[in-house]
Amino acid sequence: MSADKGITPRATDFSAWYNDVIMRAELADYSPVRGCMVIRPRGYGIWELMQRALDDMFKATGHQNAYFPLFIPESFLRREAEHVEGFAPETAVVTRAGGKELEEPLVVRPTSETIIYSMLGKWVQSYRDLPVLLNQWANVVRWELRTRLFLRTTEFLWQEGHTAHATSAEAEEETLKILAVYRDFMENWMALPVLTGVKTDAERFAGAVRTYACEGLMQDNKALQAGTSHFLGQNFARAFDVQFQTMDGTMDYVWSTSWGVSTRLVGALIMAHGDDVGLVCPPRLAPLQVIIVPIWRSDEERAATFEVAERLKAELTASGVRVDVDRRDGMKPGAKYYEWEGRGVPLRLEIGPRDVAQGQAMSARRIGGKQPVSLADATTVIPDLLDGIQTELLARARARRDEHSVRGTTKEQLIELMEGQGGFAYGGFCGDGACEQVIKERTKATVRVLPDPEFRSAEAPVRCVWCDRPSVTEAVWARAY
Amino acid sequence: MSADKGITPRATDFSAWYNDVIMRAELADYSPVRGCMVIRPRGYGIWELMQRALDDMFKATGHQNAYFPLFIPESFLRREAEHVEGFAPETAVVTRAGGKELEEPLVVRPTSETIIYSMLGKWVQSYRDLPVLLNQWANVVRWELRTRLFLRTTEFLWQEGHTAHATSAEAEEETLKILAVYRDFMENWMALPVLTGVKTDAERFAGAVRTYACEGLMQDNKALQAGTSHFLGQNFARAFDVQFQTMDGTMDYVWSTSWGVSTRLVGALIMAHGDDVGLVCPPRLAPLQVIIVPIWRSDEERAATFEVAERLKAELTASGVRVDVDRRDGMKPGAKYYEWEGRGVPLRLEIGPRDVAQGQAMSARRIGGKQPVSLADATTVIPDLLDGIQTELLARARARRDEHSVRGTTKEQLIELMEGQGGFAYGGFCGDGACEQVIKERTKATVRVLPDPEFRSAEAPVRCVWCDRPSVTEAVWARAY
Repeated sequence: MSADKGITPRATDFSAWYNDVIMRAELADYSPVRGCMVIRPRGYGIWELMQRALDDMFKATGHQNAYFPLFIPESFLRREAEHVEGFAPETAVVTRAGGKELEEPLVVRPTSETIIYSMLGKWVQSYRDLPVLLNQWANVVRWELRTRLFLRTTEFLWQEGHTAHATSAEAEEETLKILAVYRDFMENWMALPVLTGVKTDAERFAGAVRTYACEGLMQDNKALQAGTSHFLGQNFARAFDVQFQTMDGTMDYVWSTSWGVSTRLVGALIMAHGDDVGLVCPPRLAPLQVIIVPIWRSDEERAATFEVAERLKAELTASGVRVDVDRRDGMKPGAKYYEWEGRGVPLRLEIGPRDVAQGQAMSARRIGGKQPVSLADATTVIPDLLDGIQTELLARARARRDEHSVRGTTKEQLIELMEGQGGFAYGGFCGDGACEQVIKERTKATVRVLPDPEFRSAEAPVRCVWCDRPSVTEAVWARAY
Repeated sequence: MSADKGITPRATDFSAWYNDVIMRAELADYSPVRGCMVIRPRGYGIWELMQRALDDMFKATGHQNAYFPLFIPESFLRREAEHVEGFAPETAVVTRAGGKELEEPLVVRPTSETIIYSMLGKWVQSYRDLPVLLNQWANVVRWELRTRLFLRTTEFLWQEGHTAHATSAEAEEETLKILAVYRDFMENWMALPVLTGVKTDAERFAGAVRTYACEGLMQDNKALQAGTSHFLGQNFARAFDVQFQTMDGTMDYVWSTSWGVSTRLVGALIMAHGDDVGLVCPPRLAPLQVIIVPIWRSDEERAATFEVAERLKAELTASGVRVDVDRRDGMKPGAKYYEWEGRGVPLRLEIGPRDVAQGQAMSARRIGGKQPVSLADATTVIPDLLDGIQTELLARARARRDEHSVRGTTKEQLIELMEGQGGFAYGGFCGDGACEQVIKERTKATVRVLPDPEFRSAEAPVRCVWCDRPSVTEAVWARAY
């Protein structure tokens, strides 16, 4: 795509559209390193706002940030059997350093459970040292064969929470607490409604007892796993011998959790809200929420519109709005509008000579809708307009998701749906991994989650959607990223 | 060191003292990976506050954050001759990934100039695309033989700024602007007075035209390079062919800068202010600024002191103070004081039954000085007390530095000083690298900087401190970390 050619429409080729949006909005770029991306300032700005919001939420729930080494001795990965099976094939390995071959190769962390549990044993002796509630903002590396900007890159940025508790119940509670934090963030910051529930064994994190997930539906009706929260039981505690003295004086292994979201969320945001003009960024995560475009012909008009624009910018900034003025000469207003729309700025304020005379600006929402705004009321009206956009984006995404969620799916419907328009298919599930595997091979759909109670259908399914044996649980299928 | 043994006094063994302080304050720990450290929450909290302050300063001067890949193709490093010579010997190299040998090994970034310049050519075509003002918060790896917690670790966290400009003058101006930002941060946040100036060729960044630095003096009178800002000229632009069309329509290579500070600053903070009791943290960078310790015997007293303590905490929190209450039962007040002092909390507020009755708390400054504080005035008096501590720490550090700065040093004095008490030795310098090398071999001192005008001696030196040839510039020598 080039600026001249425009953006490929979603209906033509969703995947090409996605890349075009990223390029036009200058969110990221391909790097000369296989599978690695460069996150450009406009994309990184979204990630910074995500980080700030999530970090505040983690701290409000008692977590503290720490930092563990990038490198993990290869032998550590092997200590947890499932874990090494899951991660070893996709590791990048340092074998040479300081000009010499290393005695033990070092794996570039794909996730940090092993290195963290190797330390916890040193810090935790008694129940008084628990719970340990840690989070880490870091880069991780997983050698993926097929990569996509933001969605699946060899290196990505994420946060990984790691907690250790005295009881199983407390660890399970933590797992669910974080799942709720993620959902809150996704819905109220990203305007992305998510379905929560537990993963089947086939989709479980390598080394976890249970994996919970938040699943969003993108505009091409494919699911995207937006965040996961794992109850690890005592698996890693046993592998790394992290024991503590209980209140009764006996010894026990700690119970632990881990949970993470990544820069993949930027991809989710793009695919949930973007349109054929480009990015649509929810106001709460928009690095720039309002762009003011002065419109003038004469020097006199230029001076007058700029003065009003700069004053408005100062007032809005003081009210906590992220705003700028497009001061560029030699560029027509229409071209500016087109550029800022492609970049997803939620609200545009146009100020021409007539607006100056009338003490107003013309507002144009990125998602449609124009109205004049009195400059005198701007500091109350503009934040309201932004809130309205935020709310509307969530409502639209929720309506779209509901429209593409089918309940009580039959086998035929499941096949037809997955080969056709896609979406979330709710249906009965026998719980047999073999059946799950056949469905995956036949329809390319996976069980996204066994949904949490509030998402379950009013009428519990009786038979498995595929094999007709009794259903042990409802499940939600979709093709996924 | 163990909590029982106490901290090694600075005078006995400064290096042991440094490690003891870190362990007692739980700032960091050794990891099972050679040369890598774990930054624990109390240490990471200081780094987070440093990041926030610096990030605000970078953004206020027009910089934006971005993120570039961790891995750099080995061939990229080789494109700039001095750069590869400086960094190649200490790189960690990924040779195997996804289960296969890589065709071209990937270096784990020791710094990101090369990967960034490989992208800049794509983004910069014309003078209109300049300046590019980027910053990146990231981890980097340099395979060091001798490592020290925070000061020199194989992996460390830092920020690296990278900017590109249309003219040499503009790039040079940027280099100095950032040097001033660093100094401002070090003095006004870290309470660390720093000497600024330019490095000699021997100490220059590999690939730079000129390196400027901020140098602090630690309590053992060794210098610590706290931050550097490099004018890169067109070196990297030529190596990566980053050309742009000038306003005149001709083509030119961009002029660039890079600059960085790292988690080493946490080490500097410890060594600048700590005492034989433990950490002393400047209030502006203290994750916890005030600890409230209720003192009670009866349940009734406990209820009364806790109520006052919690109310005070709420009021101070609302005023922007980072404060907590030590609610632990079964631990004597003295033991609590000892612990919080070791952790460097700037101010302690003791609240006993008599204080409750009198509507006051007893304040105790970490750096000495007790006074009662009326609870009614707490939200104004406490911030003032914290400001006072911040100011006093800077004044103390400045006095200590000045006391250990010798001007017009002779050869004999330089030798005596470097073999004895240490400090900054100002003297004339012939500018000859050979002379510099001899001094280094003989005294273990290096030229820290050729000082900026405001730090130069009133009387310019006439002869080189070592060879007695004419001095071309004043220089400052010290043994350094």
